[in-house]
This record gives sequence, C-alpha cells and structure tokens, in this order.
Amino acid sequence: MNVKTLSEEHLNALTSIVGEAHVSIKSADLDQHARDQSFHEPRRPAAVVWPVSTEQVSAVLKLANQQLIPVTPWGAGTSLEGNPIPVCGGIVLNLSRMNQILEVRVADFQVDVQPGVLYKDMNARLARSGLFFAPDPGANASIGGMIANNAAGTRTPKYGATRENVLRLELVTASGEIIQTGCHSVKSASGYDLVHLFIGSEGTLGVVTQATLKLAPVPEKFSAVIASFETIAGAAQAVSSVMGCGVMPVAMEFLDVTTVRAFNSAGGIQFPEQPTLLMEFHSAAEAGLQAELELVRELCDAEGCMAFQSGLGREERDRLWSVRHQAYEILVRNNPGHAFLIVDVAVPISRFPELVAAVEQALARRNLSAPIVGHAGDGNLHTLIPYTPGDATSQMLAHVADAEMVEAAIALNGTATGEHGVGIGKRQFMAREHGSSLALMRAIKNALDPNGILNPGKIFEETVFSDR
Amino acid sequence: MNVKTLSEEHLNALTSIVGEAHVSIKSADLDQHARDQSFHEPRRPAAVVWPVSTEQVSAVLKLANQQLIPVTPWGAGTSLEGNPIPVCGGIVLNLSRMNQILEVRVADFQVDVQPGVLYKDMNARLARSGLFFAPDPGANASIGGMIANNAAGTRTPKYGATRENVLRLELVTASGEIIQTGCHSVKSASGYDLVHLFIGSEGTLGVVTQATLKLAPVPEKFSAVIASFETIAGAAQAVSSVMGCGVMPVAMEFLDVTTVRAFNSAGGIQFPEQPTLLMEFHSAAEAGLQAELELVRELCDAEGCMAFQSGLGREERDRLWSVRHQAYEILVRNNPGHAFLIVDVAVPISRFPELVAAVEQALARRNLSAPIVGHAGDGNLHTLIPYTPGDATSQMLAHVADAEMVEAAIALNGTATGEHGVGIGKRQFMAREHGSSLALMRAIKNALDPNGILNPGKIFEETVFSDR
Repeated sequence: MNVKTLSEEHLNALTSIVGEAHVSIKSADLDQHARDQSFHEPRRPAAVVWPVSTEQVSAVLKLANQQLIPVTPWGAGTSLEGNPIPVCGGIVLNLSRMNQILEVRVADFQVDVQPGVLYKDMNARLARSGLFFAPDPGANASIGGMIANNAAGTRTPKYGATRENVLRLELVTASGEIIQTGCHSVKSASGYDLVHLFIGSEGTLGVVTQATLKLAPVPEKFSAVIASFETIAGAAQAVSSVMGCGVMPVAMEFLDVTTVRAFNSAGGIQFPEQPTLLMEFHSAAEAGLQAELELVRELCDAEGCMAFQSGLGREERDRLWSVRHQAYEILVRNNPGHAFLIVDVAVPISRFPELVAAVEQALARRNLSAPIVGHAGDGNLHTLIPYTPGDATSQMLAHVADAEMVEAAIALNGTATGEHGVGIGKRQFMAREHGSSLALMRAIKNALDPNGILNPGKIFEETVFSDR
Repeated sequence: MNVKTLSEEHLNALTSIVGEAHVSIKSADLDQHARDQSFHEPRRPAAVVWPVSTEQVSAVLKLANQQLIPVTPWGAGTSLEGNPIPVCGGIVLNLSRMNQILEVRVADFQVDVQPGVLYKDMNARLARSGLFFAPDPGANASIGGMIANNAAGTRTPKYGATRENVLRLELVTASGEIIQTGCHSVKSASGYDLVHLFIGSEGTLGVVTQATLKLAPVPEKFSAVIASFETIAGAAQAVSSVMGCGVMPVAMEFLDVTTVRAFNSAGGIQFPEQPTLLMEFHSAAEAGLQAELELVRELCDAEGCMAFQSGLGREERDRLWSVRHQAYEILVRNNPGHAFLIVDVAVPISRFPELVAAVEQALARRNLSAPIVGHAGDGNLHTLIPYTPGDATSQMLAHVADAEMVEAAIALNGTATGEHGVGIGKRQFMAREHGSSLALMRAIKNALDPNGILNPGKIFEETVFSDR
C-alpha cells in the first residue's frame, strides 16, 4: 500500500466532507506533514485533511476504509520515533483544529478536551482552577498525540504516564463508527478496558476525538532538590533508597557529568560537575515538606552525596526544569553540525546501574561520546547519540549503538521504549520484546482495522493488513 | 452450550494431563464450585480440575478448545457477581494449587506470584520485606481472581485498584498458547497494552498463570481518622474538599447512620451515631503526617464536622478496618433470616450526593431499609439490600431496587460496577453503559476466543460464541 496521490474524485469527496479550507495537497503542507521531530526519513502524504468535528473524522474514515486509503492521525508533530510519518502516503488527518477545552469539572478533577489541544496551553488555562494534567513530555505535544504514544516525562513517579491519567475516550474506528469508552467514574470494573488498549496504540486502532483527563491539584508546597554524588553507583543507589522510603518524589532525574556540563554551559543554573539527581517534591503543608526533605537528605548522604541543595524558590525551580526540558536544544546548540538520535529505554530500577554500564560500553566500543540523562525514578534512560546528518556511516553507527542499548534493556527485563512509542524506530524489536503476545496484538489490529488503513507501517514491521 | 457431564474419554484425557489427584467429579467438589459468595443461582460444573503448572493449564485449554468444552477459571470463590459460576457447565479450572510466591524483588518493589496465592497470605509474607500489595477486597481473594475482576477496596484513592498495580502477566490463551505480556519496567510505551486488556476481563480472554505485581512500602507513619458530620451533605462535601487538598488519603469511606449503628453493635469501637467519614493517611514522617491531619481537620470542620478523632494507635486502627471489612458479616448477624444483595456502583465524586439521594429514594419507594457504605474517595457506593432467601417476591424487590440504582449511576456518568465486576449480575447493563463500544469488546472476544470456551455467559448477555 502506497498511495502517493489521490484521485480527483477522492479529493472532491474529502472537500465535500470538511470544506475546501480544510483539505490541502500543497507541497508546503505535504512537506510539513512528512516528518516529526525524529531522525526518521520524511515521507509525504497524498493530502492533509483538518477535520473540525467528530462527524467529519467519521466521514473521512468511512471514505478511506471503503477506498483503502491509508490514514495517519497527526497531533502536533512533536513525536520522536516517526509515529505520525505517513509511510504509506494517503491522508494525514491533522487534528489541530479540534482544539477546544470542552468542560473543566473542578470538583471531580477532570477535564474534557478535544485531541488537538496542546498540553502546555491546557495547563496554563487549568492553572486558574488550581489543577493540572501531570504527564509532561518536553515538547508542547497535543493531548491526542500524548494519548496515542502514552507520553510521559519527568513527573511519572508520582503521577504516572498518560496511561494513568485518562478516564474516557471518544473514538472513531477504522470503519468510521463513533464510540465512547470508559466513564467519568475513576473506579470501574465494567467490561474490557478499551481505554488502556487505545492509549499507546499510536493511531493504529482508532482516532481519538475527545478525551476525559484526570487532573491533579496544583501543590501548595513544592521543593526542587539538586543532589550531587561522588559516583554514578552512589546516585543509582540513592534512587532506590528514596523511591522506597514512602515519600514519593514527583520527579527523580539522573544527569551524568556530560549533561551537567551542558546544562551549566546554558547558563542560569550552576550544578557541581558530578553525577546528579534532580528531584522534586510536592506537599500540601510546609511542615510535611520539610520532614520529607530531611528524610531524603539522610538517604542521599548515606550514598555519598557531596552537595544537597533543596528549598529552591519557584523561579529557580522553574528555571531548573526549563533547562532539563531543553536538554536536546542545548546539545544541538553546543554541537553545531550534529544531530542526535535519542535512545529511550527503560528497565526495573534495580537494573538501572547495569543499564547505565551497558550504555557506556556501547558508546565506548564505538568511540562515541553521548550524554546520559534519565527519568531514573522509573528506570527510563535517554542517551543522545550524536551523528552527522548526511553522513551514512555516522548515522549507521548511531543506529547500531541504539540497537545494542535496546537489546540490553530488554535483556534486563525492560522495554524498547519507555515513553516515545514504537513508531518506525522500534518495530524491529517488538518480536524480541513481546514474543508470542505480538501475535495477539496483530489479532486485535486485524479485528479492529481489517483493511489496515490506520497508520500502516507502525508498531508492526510488516504492513500485512494492507494488501487486500 | 451446556456441558453437564464429560465423557469417559475427556475425563481420561484430563487425568492424563494433571494426574488423578487433581481431577474430580465428586458431588461435594462440584457443589463447592457451583457458587461464589453472591446470591446468584448455583450451577455445577461437569468436573473440577486443579492444575499445578502453566503447562498443565495449556494442555487442559488445548483439549477444551478442540472438544468445545467450557472452561471457567476459579480463584478463591470470593467474588460477588457470580463471576466464576460455571453457567455452561464444563470444566472449572481451580488455580488454588498454583499458589507459590516465586520471587520478591525488594529493590524494585515487585513480586512474581502464581494466581492461586491469597492476597492476605501474600501480604503477611511481604511484610517481612517492608512491602505490601495495596488493593484490598474484604475477603481473602486470590491474586488471579483479583486480576480477573480488577478488584479494589478501601485503599484505592492513594494506591489504585488492581489495574494500577500489575506490571506483567503470563497467560494461557483459549487455544492453549502460553504468552507473556508487559514487563518488569514500570514505564513502557511498547505495543498494545494487553496487560490492562486482560485485567478485569473475568477469565473470558485467557487464564492468568503468573503475575508481576507492583508493591508499596509499608508506611512509617499512619493515622486513621473518624470524622462525624451533622449531615450527609456535609460529609459528601468534605470528601470533595479533602480529595482536592493535595493530601491523598489512603482510604476515604462513607458510612451512613444505619451502618454506624451496626458497627457499634459489633462492639470494639463506638462511633457517634452520625454520617461518618472513615479515613486513613500514610506518611514517611511524623511531622508530615501531623501537618496533613491538621489540614484535613480544618476542611472537615468547615463542612460541619462534629467530632474528629485522629491519631488512633495501630491496634485501634486495625480494629477499625477489621470492623469495616466485616460490614457484611455484621449485617448478616444482626438480621437473622435475611440475605443481602450487595449493590456496587460508582460515579464521579461530585455526583456522589446525587447517587446517595437516588439510592435512598429507590429504597424508600419499596419500603426497604438498607445501610449505605461507600468508598466515597473514588465515588464507589455499596448498599446492602436485605431479602428473605426463598421468598421470590422479596428477592425480586431487591433486584429491582438494585437495577434502579445501577441505572441512576450510569445516568450520573458512572458505572454499573466499581469493583465487583460484571459476572452474571451486571450483564444486562453493559449495552446501556458501553453503547457501541460493546461491539468492540465482542470483536476482541471473538478474535481471542473464537470458540467461546472461556467463562461463557459472563460480561456479555448472550453466549453467542458457543454454538459453533
């Protein structure tokens, strides 16, 4: 299946569904929807369609399903594994014009939104109600994209990934049927858990057109902590101690010395140039927060902590997290002429030190130098492997090192992707990671999208569903 | 499909798989596996089989799938909606002899267990490692049963239901294939989330033969709280205030005056005879706990709290929760000659007062008096409707009242079942609650169990899969 262009008839049909202003085959538009923020090869769709209602999404999918046209849903294009690249051409369904916050239910800590809402914009609006949506990918992703990829970020230890924060979905299936699944009750044992099946399915099973999200109250008191350690091993051991002490950190980030130096170069904050844990704690009361910080300091001290800074004010804390979220941009700036392959693996936290060692070996073996940063509190590690764009050898080297790290993570009972999803880049590891349960995933894909029109070429290596 | 007896050949085949000591067609055994702890009509299986290994489960399912014999998995028989009653006869697969704790990984807060382990026994063993599995149904359920029904209990507000506490499953599918899904990493965005699909599927999609559970550290400091209110409305409002203040209670239980009186009659603890909230808080440090309790007291006072008892010692706190967990037994004792239909509905917490009002109306309209208790922190309400066993009219009255409460919950954007599952009793509400997503659930059932041998007659009203 590779639909490079659409017939006049198909384009007319699309125009009659969404209106002329919401369909494009202009080169600039096709190019803009040919790539996400990853290194994966761009592929242009045949057309871009911007629906503004669930009914329009349904009508587009009905048409595409009848005519066997691939449909790739598109959020904000900020993903990192080629998840929304239309590798089989066809239609890119850009949901950015369905971007309404429909209802905030403060007493229930819930919000109903359309998929095109950007999460940073949404959180700015929710702040007025004293609430926020906790999962925080660095980029200003769309809620639909976060749901599709089960996005996460630094706040997962306390608040969970996107998966833990969605209660209900409205979806359009491959055949164009509109369904609702889940409910507004936070607790339910009613029927199959389709909500979780769709979260992380990367638009291969249906298109999210509305979501009810779980929100958290903005904390009264918070403190960021910078803890600098003598050794990586000490930092890793401190992760385990703190995670087990009953004070659940909101964030627990590991930075190696290379990363610390890069952050320092960005200005604003000066860290000691040591293996570092960056943490954050939320509490409802100042006395509670202080007691927790005291306990955490003791645990860090026991593992060779050389400097423990806590109680940073709001401004300094915001700057800290802003630097952390700009890690990628800082590296790009510091390394002109280079691009970066971002490794995204996760393991049980006790295996984190082994994972770090395996990553260091994989780099050293190839004479690569790459910073290691990680959401250590949940065993998720990122390495940013530099390569020279256009230089096939350097790019191949980065890929081989990445593959070795993924294999290491899986061998440590971990996963090929902690938060970026499978997309194009991790398909080759699915059989290794999932074994015979991959056949079950395929059976579900076949049952829900028998013509294989939804985001073909993702998650599964072959597009077996497409040649009917 | 109704397999009342098995042929000599089938019995021989089963015996050759599990050995003579692990198959029974004795009346006593069949009777024991004909009912759970609910009011649902008992139905005897044709045989009971106790496998001791995953391979045996696989061989039994292969046989059953080839011969079209229904298989109903059985944990501890403590469920409350007829979930493991073998309504189509065939084989009950009793997993109680697969009851090993395989590995405790303290540093990862994880345990690998077989499905027959009873959760109270497991927690007693885990206490030595300073860890516990948080979901707590009242009865000593098996882990396999808890996974099948997505069981929960009083500790859901802070720790979640079973759904939030399982990382990985080994399963046997209807065709006898052994699969592993999920991984030991707490974070993953790799492929479809089959773990959550199987949790709460009540044995209709596969048989769990091993599970990796997420554990929590036993809290250093805890406090139970008894808060008595002037009015039900005040108590309900306090639920909302406390849940939104940033201090996440472990438990947040609502007791109406009828329930309080019943508890007082059981002795041990004397509550003021008022609408009551029973709470528990966990903290890593005493100062933190005290600060949190102070905040909670203020919020309760603002809603007309007449008495606020906190800081109960371990012994008193344990007695308190033991009384709470014995609610059912206390009621049975206080009402000789009566049995109870346990209603289990849940709504968004802001709708909890409306749900309580609807429940009171449904009872009053029928001159029924029934205590209302609820996991108010997550909007889950139980009413225990008394009826006279053997008296069809009284039983029918209880059922009609239950149905009215379920309809009310669904109309309030809630769910037909908060934690007991669908089983037999809630099948009739599935179309109403799930609308067209029920067809998707059926499509998945068909894809994974095409012969419909796994726990037929549950979740879906019709056993459409059985007549092939």
